[in-house]
Amino acid sequence: MNIFYAPYVSGEKCILDERESRHCIKVLRHRKSDSIIISDGKGGLFEAVIENPDPAACVVKITGTMEDKQARTYYLHLAVSPLKNPERLEWLIEKCVEIGVDEITPVICDKTEKKTVRMDRAEGIIISAMKQSLKARKTIINKPEYFADFISSFNADLKLIAHCYGSNPRKSVREAYNNEGSIIFLIGPEGDFTLNEIASALQEGYIPVHLGSSRLRTETAGIAACHSIYLLNQC
Amino acid sequence: MNIFYAPYVSGEKCILDERESRHCIKVLRHRKSDSIIISDGKGGLFEAVIENPDPAACVVKITGTMEDKQARTYYLHLAVSPLKNPERLEWLIEKCVEIGVDEITPVICDKTEKKTVRMDRAEGIIISAMKQSLKARKTIINKPEYFADFISSFNADLKLIAHCYGSNPRKSVREAYNNEGSIIFLIGPEGDFTLNEIASALQEGYIPVHLGSSRLRTETAGIAACHSIYLLNQC
Repeated sequence: MNIFYAPYVSGEKCILDERESRHCIKVLRHRKSDSIIISDGKGGLFEAVIENPDPAACVVKITGTMEDKQARTYYLHLAVSPLKNPERLEWLIEKCVEIGVDEITPVICDKTEKKTVRMDRAEGIIISAMKQSLKARKTIINKPEYFADFISSFNADLKLIAHCYGSNPRKSVREAYNNEGSIIFLIGPEGDFTLNEIASALQEGYIPVHLGSSRLRTETAGIAACHSIYLLNQC
Repeated sequence: MNIFYAPYVSGEKCILDERESRHCIKVLRHRKSDSIIISDGKGGLFEAVIENPDPAACVVKITGTMEDKQARTYYLHLAVSPLKNPERLEWLIEKCVEIGVDEITPVICDKTEKKTVRMDRAEGIIISAMKQSLKARKTIINKPEYFADFISSFNADLKLIAHCYGSNPRKSVREAYNNEGSIIFLIGPEGDFTLNEIASALQEGYIPVHLGSSRLRTETAGIAACHSIYLLNQC
């Protein structure tokens, strides 16, 4: 069954916004009385029926609630440098949303070459991936932050920084992760963090980790980080 | 240090093929006496020095051997349906090579819409990803096989088939995987395997598995499969 995103579900009826209405009525050609699913992006999944198939403001009637079978017991905040090729960051975002991530912050590091992120595109990719993978919670994407600001102003129960300096002590994610509470996972740019950045992060309580012996591209490291936390919670 | 692929290294010297010579001399602008690394794709990593920087047939002198720090204790064969959008399969191939996969076979299933794979492009992506992630072994890519032919003619110590039919019994990868020997991991097309295909695979000794509670796209499932095996071997 097809799923649509409507952030404000209250009461019996709900009007899809323009983008979702178009997707529902124009693209997927739903008609009056068709059954669909509504995700409010905040943990709510609802059964619904189309009342007025308006392609700009589709009206649906909520008929029941559904269980969120993908509810996670952890809160994962992925902080990752923007990439030279914006498509690669967009891929990372799509894949991490599918696997499961609660919050993403683009972090501008010393070696970050492209410092901007198309936030409107990122938001669209998040909504598509959320719908495609039937998620009840929408991933939050924050505006880009500079590295120093990020590590001093964002906090979590566990903070991990992945880097590739083999001579510095690093734990595996499995060793560092205790399966509890909220996590920030920090992934650097092409060319890695600088040693200064790593030292600053350690001062803020970050634990240095590696993602195994493979040298991964930034976007692959981001996916591997999300999937590691996912898998370690799956016992 | 930059790495180049030369499948036939024997003796003291070696000539890079046209593609690798161009990448080395034209793109990365290496000169005579520069130090580079050669991977033979079969487990050999060599230190080398450029003797003749010919952009069509670069001659290098082998000066030493290097340890393969990414050598795996398992052999993973990923069998995955081609996708409607060929770029998504190419992404899957790139990411799986980075994380670690020994062999890939495109498998044409009942619901596979696009039945062809650009093998020349796939081979190029594999070589690029192998170089980028400093691998000593090149992933083998086989020509596409029909599902029935694949499951009857390819074998391994452990054979897993991932599907999304929640009502059928499935193990988690962690439950099914014993960390030993060779594995075939079979991933279906958009829309999943048919129940007939799953029944045939079980008859051939495949174990049905899931990749967690998230509904993953095919290419994400392929990456998650590779990363699961990788992580479970990482203790």
